Amino acid sequence: MARSAVAFLCIFLAISACNGGYIRYNTSAGIVAGKLNVHLVAHSHDDVGWLKTIDQYYVGSNNSIQGACVMNVLDSVVDALLKDPNRKFVFAEQAFFQRWWREQNEQTQEVVRKLVDSGQLEFINGGWCMHDEATVHYVDMIDQTTLGHRMIKKQFNKVPRVGWQIDPFGHSAVQAYLLGAELGFDSVHFARIDYQDRQKRKVGKSLEVIWRGSKTFGSSSQIFANAFPVHYSPPEGFGFEVNDDILPVQDDKLLYDYNVEQRVNDFIDAAITQANVTRTNHMMWTMGDDFKYQYAESWFRQMDKLIHYVNKDGRVHALYSSPSIYTDAKNAANESWPLKFDDYFPYADAANAYWTGYFTSRPTFKRYVRMLSGYYLAARQIEFLAGMTSSGPSTWSLGDALGIAQHHDAITGTAKQHTTDDYAKRLAYGASEAEKVVNLALPCLTNTNCASSAVTFSQCNLLNISYCPATEEEILDGKSLVVVAYNPLGWNRSDFIRIPVNDDLLVVRDSNGNNIDTQFVEVDNVTSNIRNLYVKAYLGVSPKEAPKYWLVFQVSVPPLGWNSYLVSRAAGKGMSRNGYISAGAGPENDTIEVGPGPLKMSFSSTSGQLKRMVNYRTGVDIPIQQSYLWYGSSSGDTDPQASGAYIFRPNGAPPTPASRSVPLKVIRGPLVDEVYQQFNSWIYQVIRLYKDKDYAEIEYTVGPIPTDDDVGKEVITRLTANMVTNGTFFTDSNGRDFLKRVRDYREDWNLEVTQPIAGNYYPLNLGIYIADGKSELSILVDHAVGGSSIKDGEIEIMLHRRMLSDDSRGVGEPLDEQVCVDNACEGLTSRGNYYMSVNQLGSGAYWRRTYGQQIYSPLLLAFTHEDEARWKSSHITKTTMMEDGYSLPPNVALITLQVLDDGTVLLRLAHLYEAGEDVQYSTMAKVELKRVFAKKMIKELKETSLSTNQEKSEMKKMTWQVEGDNGRFPAPVRGGPVNNVTLVIELGPMEIRTFLLKF
Amino acid sequence: MARSAVAFLCIFLAISACNGGYIRYNTSAGIVAGKLNVHLVAHSHDDVGWLKTIDQYYVGSNNSIQGACVMNVLDSVVDALLKDPNRKFVFAEQAFFQRWWREQNEQTQEVVRKLVDSGQLEFINGGWCMHDEATVHYVDMIDQTTLGHRMIKKQFNKVPRVGWQIDPFGHSAVQAYLLGAELGFDSVHFARIDYQDRQKRKVGKSLEVIWRGSKTFGSSSQIFANAFPVHYSPPEGFGFEVNDDILPVQDDKLLYDYNVEQRVNDFIDAAITQANVTRTNHMMWTMGDDFKYQYAESWFRQMDKLIHYVNKDGRVHALYSSPSIYTDAKNAANESWPLKFDDYFPYADAANAYWTGYFTSRPTFKRYVRMLSGYYLAARQIEFLAGMTSSGPSTWSLGDALGIAQHHDAITGTAKQHTTDDYAKRLAYGASEAEKVVNLALPCLTNTNCASSAVTFSQCNLLNISYCPATEEEILDGKSLVVVAYNPLGWNRSDFIRIPVNDDLLVVRDSNGNNIDTQFVEVDNVTSNIRNLYVKAYLGVSPKEAPKYWLVFQVSVPPLGWNSYLVSRAAGKGMSRNGYISAGAGPENDTIEVGPGPLKMSFSSTSGQLKRMVNYRTGVDIPIQQSYLWYGSSSGDTDPQASGAYIFRPNGAPPTPASRSVPLKVIRGPLVDEVYQQFNSWIYQVIRLYKDKDYAEIEYTVGPIPTDDDVGKEVITRLTANMVTNGTFFTDSNGRDFLKRVRDYREDWNLEVTQPIAGNYYPLNLGIYIADGKSELSILVDHAVGGSSIKDGEIEIMLHRRMLSDDSRGVGEPLDEQVCVDNACEGLTSRGNYYMSVNQLGSGAYWRRTYGQQIYSPLLLAFTHEDEARWKSSHITKTTMMEDGYSLPPNVALITLQVLDDGTVLLRLAHLYEAGEDVQYSTMAKVELKRVFAKKMIKELKETSLSTNQEKSEMKKMTWQVEGDNGRFPAPVRGGPVNNVTLVIELGPMEIRTFLLKF
Repeated sequence: MARSAVAFLCIFLAISACNGGYIRYNTSAGIVAGKLNVHLVAHSHDDVGWLKTIDQYYVGSNNSIQGACVMNVLDSVVDALLKDPNRKFVFAEQAFFQRWWREQNEQTQEVVRKLVDSGQLEFINGGWCMHDEATVHYVDMIDQTTLGHRMIKKQFNKVPRVGWQIDPFGHSAVQAYLLGAELGFDSVHFARIDYQDRQKRKVGKSLEVIWRGSKTFGSSSQIFANAFPVHYSPPEGFGFEVNDDILPVQDDKLLYDYNVEQRVNDFIDAAITQANVTRTNHMMWTMGDDFKYQYAESWFRQMDKLIHYVNKDGRVHALYSSPSIYTDAKNAANESWPLKFDDYFPYADAANAYWTGYFTSRPTFKRYVRMLSGYYLAARQIEFLAGMTSSGPSTWSLGDALGIAQHHDAITGTAKQHTTDDYAKRLAYGASEAEKVVNLALPCLTNTNCASSAVTFSQCNLLNISYCPATEEEILDGKSLVVVAYNPLGWNRSDFIRIPVNDDLLVVRDSNGNNIDTQFVEVDNVTSNIRNLYVKAYLGVSPKEAPKYWLVFQVSVPPLGWNSYLVSRAAGKGMSRNGYISAGAGPENDTIEVGPGPLKMSFSSTSGQLKRMVNYRTGVDIPIQQSYLWYGSSSGDTDPQASGAYIFRPNGAPPTPASRSVPLKVIRGPLVDEVYQQFNSWIYQVIRLYKDKDYAEIEYTVGPIPTDDDVGKEVITRLTANMVTNGTFFTDSNGRDFLKRVRDYREDWNLEVTQPIAGNYYPLNLGIYIADGKSELSILVDHAVGGSSIKDGEIEIMLHRRMLSDDSRGVGEPLDEQVCVDNACEGLTSRGNYYMSVNQLGSGAYWRRTYGQQIYSPLLLAFTHEDEARWKSSHITKTTMMEDGYSLPPNVALITLQVLDDGTVLLRLAHLYEAGEDVQYSTMAKVELKRVFAKKMIKELKETSLSTNQEKSEMKKMTWQVEGDNGRFPAPVRGGPVNNVTLVIELGPMEIRTFLLKF
Repeated sequence: MARSAVAFLCIFLAISACNGGYIRYNTSAGIVAGKLNVHLVAHSHDDVGWLKTIDQYYVGSNNSIQGACVMNVLDSVVDALLKDPNRKFVFAEQAFFQRWWREQNEQTQEVVRKLVDSGQLEFINGGWCMHDEATVHYVDMIDQTTLGHRMIKKQFNKVPRVGWQIDPFGHSAVQAYLLGAELGFDSVHFARIDYQDRQKRKVGKSLEVIWRGSKTFGSSSQIFANAFPVHYSPPEGFGFEVNDDILPVQDDKLLYDYNVEQRVNDFIDAAITQANVTRTNHMMWTMGDDFKYQYAESWFRQMDKLIHYVNKDGRVHALYSSPSIYTDAKNAANESWPLKFDDYFPYADAANAYWTGYFTSRPTFKRYVRMLSGYYLAARQIEFLAGMTSSGPSTWSLGDALGIAQHHDAITGTAKQHTTDDYAKRLAYGASEAEKVVNLALPCLTNTNCASSAVTFSQCNLLNISYCPATEEEILDGKSLVVVAYNPLGWNRSDFIRIPVNDDLLVVRDSNGNNIDTQFVEVDNVTSNIRNLYVKAYLGVSPKEAPKYWLVFQVSVPPLGWNSYLVSRAAGKGMSRNGYISAGAGPENDTIEVGPGPLKMSFSSTSGQLKRMVNYRTGVDIPIQQSYLWYGSSSGDTDPQASGAYIFRPNGAPPTPASRSVPLKVIRGPLVDEVYQQFNSWIYQVIRLYKDKDYAEIEYTVGPIPTDDDVGKEVITRLTANMVTNGTFFTDSNGRDFLKRVRDYREDWNLEVTQPIAGNYYPLNLGIYIADGKSELSILVDHAVGGSSIKDGEIEIMLHRRMLSDDSRGVGEPLDEQVCVDNACEGLTSRGNYYMSVNQLGSGAYWRRTYGQQIYSPLLLAFTHEDEARWKSSHITKTTMMEDGYSLPPNVALITLQVLDDGTVLLRLAHLYEAGEDVQYSTMAKVELKRVFAKKMIKELKETSLSTNQEKSEMKKMTWQVEGDNGRFPAPVRGGPVNNVTLVIELGPMEIRTFLLKF
């Protein structure tokens, strides 16, 4: 019985010496040499939307879904940190922090600044969100990180040192070297790696590694990577969230259940368990979890006591720490670290739980994000060109929405439906604001006298379903439809554009007044039907009757500039009307060859199947079939694991082909040949082969996926080429580096194959290719998907998924996307494109890199109806921002051009090739800035880190000892410092250089 | 779409004027005249144990049962109050607050003192707990309130002004006038009144009343009583607990779901709803609930906004308030209030939900509390007599444990079993400490030279089951068993004591050395069996063989003093051994009359049933039967309401008699006649009639109640007297006032009778009586029970309950008490006493008051084995603290005599009679303090409020206008101020006067 006479004295007599019950916990000790140091890292993992929307998480509404309020976290953490200067806390997600910061009064801001200055509050990661790493494009990763890092720099003059990607479902090479080392991060920390990998690393104490994610950069872009031994939560029994069933340290002998020794022993046991899988005598305990610290004192109160009593005990040493302090301690230890290359994909947390479903989940959302990412790039350029206004619309909202959308439960498709709807709403709002920016800028930019401009532009973001009021509208006599095509690339481009029209008696003239070739293509029924449903569903209006034709014509646009085309009714003259040729009309024999340009595709006229692709320019000729199939989703069996938003688990049956033979309809014309194939009632495809282009564009329309048989379905397209590929294929990392993948194989451990399909899936953002001794077959995608090569010569990409079970990873909903009009719902239809090319071995990179950039950055089209003569007399119909005739080298892309809040201009240039990727282009490139900004005067140029928060010249790198460094990579080629007079920027392979300019 | 360009400007450009998102909420307005004022009273209802133990609630462990941590409440409330000086919070339970206070450092204590000084933090109620009002004794109510009030006074120099009994299940008259008005409270607030009563009061705007709980004091002890219109939680939608599904005010136009107007309208709607049932334009919103404010900011953040926007709207006015401010506003309004008399029992919250089960739930726990309450009173006297030591054991722990035990989920029996076990553990520990105090004090007190004392005393708290090692032990040659009997009453008393012995050759001598009469009574088998089981269960030891005999003898002890008796082996001489007479041995005819004294009871020798009670001294002769019956507990039917810990809901069948006839065993002797009756296998009874005594003592032993028929049972004893009682009976209020009850009737509304049994139950702490034109039949109880008079002439009291269903009021367990030894469990057996007396009409009060006081304050017996001669030569064998021969008037009891922490002595004297209760005793009484403390010198005397926290002379009373004040009560008689020289204290009927003395 612990209650003693002291109780009486202290409580009853209230003798001042008994003040009595109060214990001053000693939390002051830092690292102690010679002991096991347990670094307690207090953190709250605050998803930027998941089960609730970001705003609901912020304000704490909708708590019936999840008790989570980020205001509580930040408010209470600040209070708790003020109670003891030794307490520390780390925070990552700036989308939340910045909202909170904005709502604080100046006193609180001052207090928080001091907490940040003293290191009590440390920003880690520091992007707008904790982005996904599988389904995000590197430009989006950079943008969202820059957004957060600039805020932190401005408000606190701080530069985050640590990557904190604790929750994303696998980790990418680009994250390691680009969004890690190139940001200036010393380390990156995460919880999720393959369970087999983790087991092996625990045994070998190799959870912590030096990660060299880039073949091109090798050790020059390495990072210390810390994979947690269990998860990002504390060891069992050491979570202390308010209202959770915690095990408090009870050190008041006057109360019952005094348990100090017990809890100290528990702590030491947990520390020794972790020490057994950890190198050096420093280990990190991640003291937090999803939306924890709703009342921070509940945690710190217990951590104070643990530190006090554990250190009093003395067997191990506990301290408040941060990942930075931890990294410094690791670095200071005399230890060699294992090396790690490539990436951590795919991620599995159990034998039947490969998190490869989310590579494709919510494909239309993924496509929307990707489309807006390209649009955001273009809109910011136009904002820069027109000059930013301090009032009126801006691209801010779109950047904000895109930043949020990169979150690892947003773009991944693993958020609840209502949250996904909220993401889409934000994107739509951001896009409409950015559209306003463009619509307001273009009249001024295109007008010879900005002030006199009176035209009104509109844009059409539902063009892919043939909805565009501006082009569908009748062109009145005396008016023309003006099409302004803006090219955000640094290169000249020649593209085919397609606009829906209702008249086949239209002529198109270029900016010089010359008629150009056009082709009318009937809008097919599938597209018309989708248009009717989705315009109603998305815009809330019933569209007019679907337009009759696509008007196709070729445009040519200078870099970072525009060209205008005028569409008008033919005044009775003879027209270049193009005939329609249907497949049945004239198959010469059992094969139909299609294609007006160098690339020809042959189809069986009996089965309708693709048989062969030939590029007559290069002589590459590959027998190849294409089909659509679906995997039945597992809904669990002896292992209850179902396929779901995160996890791809096919039910074990071979995938079901959509059809064995398919009707074929072909139309031909001078600009484009098109092949229409309806594989089954819900899978439709159009292949387009353009004049002069050596790739095929495949537009697929998949859905509504039927589930009336109670089987979820995961739809793939599969290409089967006659190629010997030795289990090898290549997939990109975040649209940047290509990584070699070997079927049923991992470089880091002996893979036990439990899921022969799902376990071989990898994320694609740019594309996938295979090669044999002679040729390459490449596929490029227009948004993130999962893909693989399950058999030699095969490529498959998963296009759409719909299922009926939740996969038990938290989202709590089956991934069963629907579209609804007037309360009538049906499964969501996904329409998208992929692109195929066949090339000689070693030559595919040029197409992948160049055309990949075009896919990412399509022409921005704006429309208006104007008098042709007046238009021409008062407008700049065609121009470039650059020096006339100059363009960026073909291996360099401009990936950011943006005016910042202070008027500075952010410029990012990216070399597009890896070392050794292409004989001609994997070389040093030079960009002459004076010619790029020919019409402006550069007053100042400063090279910075990737996120612009520190000067490049001041960035420091930690040195690490490594095991078995066999010089696997050659020394990288990097551009030298920029001469302030010549202003020529050199870029070595894969180099991205970031500059702040003043004009 | 609320997001606008402002977002861009403020967030992106971070223009300082946009600091921007911050809103200073104006919470400063106090009361505004001419508007509906909504008083927001922020509170957390922190049960001193219920689903978890008090310590678990304090530290926040065992949260799987209930997320509740009082440290979180207090820590976070302090932080929240500091953020805005207008915020206010009220706190009640000092058992929690004092623990917390003790753990704070001086800075925090200083901060809290300022918060209390400024009124931001206000203590209301201020007792150790929020005591129950049905099953608690008024002395315990006073003690636990004093404990808290003294702390508040000492630490903060504050005097709580408000009774805050929001959760107790009905409200007592004594609470209103004694623990209300006499404490100096201006108001009392509570949520639970009968649903029919509430409905009527809502219609009549009479939820708020002037409550005159005392017939004796009438308007001189009235209080403003506020019954809440719904509950003590906020209006629907206005609770803001962390992690709850709250509806936050969203006033950031940059976020989605902006809802200020909506929430303001909600607020106004709720205010108008309440205004419709509330007099004046002041209403209270109870902004809290059970263990809410785990993170206080979560509440205050929303209340700040509501106050700001509601007041900006202007239709109603909101303010941070407290019950004190609210009471002042009510008092200031020019309003007349309805009058309310008597009490608010019984409480029902639905037609079949009468909360009258808890009057009896856990009868053994209730008895343990009552027993220790009396012991605590005696032990404090002895502590005072011996002088308190600054080290060593004290009565503190017992006072603490008893304070906690008065909580409305403790003594009520409505806590979970594990919590009840914890209460019992605390009581046992406290009792053992208090026993040590007594055991250490007695050798010194009884020794003529304290310093030379070497005897060791022991006490026996399991005497009722014949377990007492000190008396069972063999008395060695040359030694005697010394029995010291301490009398805590202010009167001489002559009691029979009973101790278990193993020898029938014992003699007893009084302190003068005279042999006195003794009687040996065989210990019956039922008692032996209980002893074997319960000693093992409670003490963990297997007791020796049960003792053979009770040794009975009469003792006489002076007031506030002791007498000693020596028991020794008869040295061969002739013994006053007493014979045993069994019932079968000699029934004269079909009736057996029993009783050695003036009271005789007649039994049928055929049925064994009681037939008649006659007091030959007074001539009262009442035909009367006695029986045991049980109600089957409802487990729900069309209404799923089950009988349970709170609720008594019989299943509708007539109660089942335990037996129609019962074997009778009678023993007779010079001191006591005993009647043994085994009604069935689990109901046993012994009636004892003592020489000279005019009451019967009935010891019942009920249990294990069988439930193998799946029917819960609620066991009553019923007395059926041949009396015409007109539906009327009388029950006490907390052991003090007697209230008239009329069957199926409520004075305040037309009762719709839905539960003819349960709805007529009332709590008994002292007893119950009925009367006809000539006689009274009174029952006194030794602990709290429920009782009623269901038919004229009947009295029933519920003795024990065991059931199989939970009654859905939160405890989540059926009330199925068990006792376990070595993992073998059986239903709990309850043994207790009740006492019966028959009196002439108008004469029962004397017995009820005098003997009631004896039941409450039994003799304290201490034992030692000593050489008789040595004992007598060195010890004070008999003495009184008072002047020899002086005793308190028979209508005055000493209810507290205690040394306080500062050496001051707390003295409380209570007049025991109501006005008009007894011709002789309902009169002014006088106590001569100089004679009471004859052996000490009183240096200073100060009269205080009941809880000692303010001087009596400085207490102020609010004046209230009332409706229909018809002078129902005569003006009370109260004692005048005490003359400091004569030190004579006058006490009018029912008066309790409290003094602080210095010697």
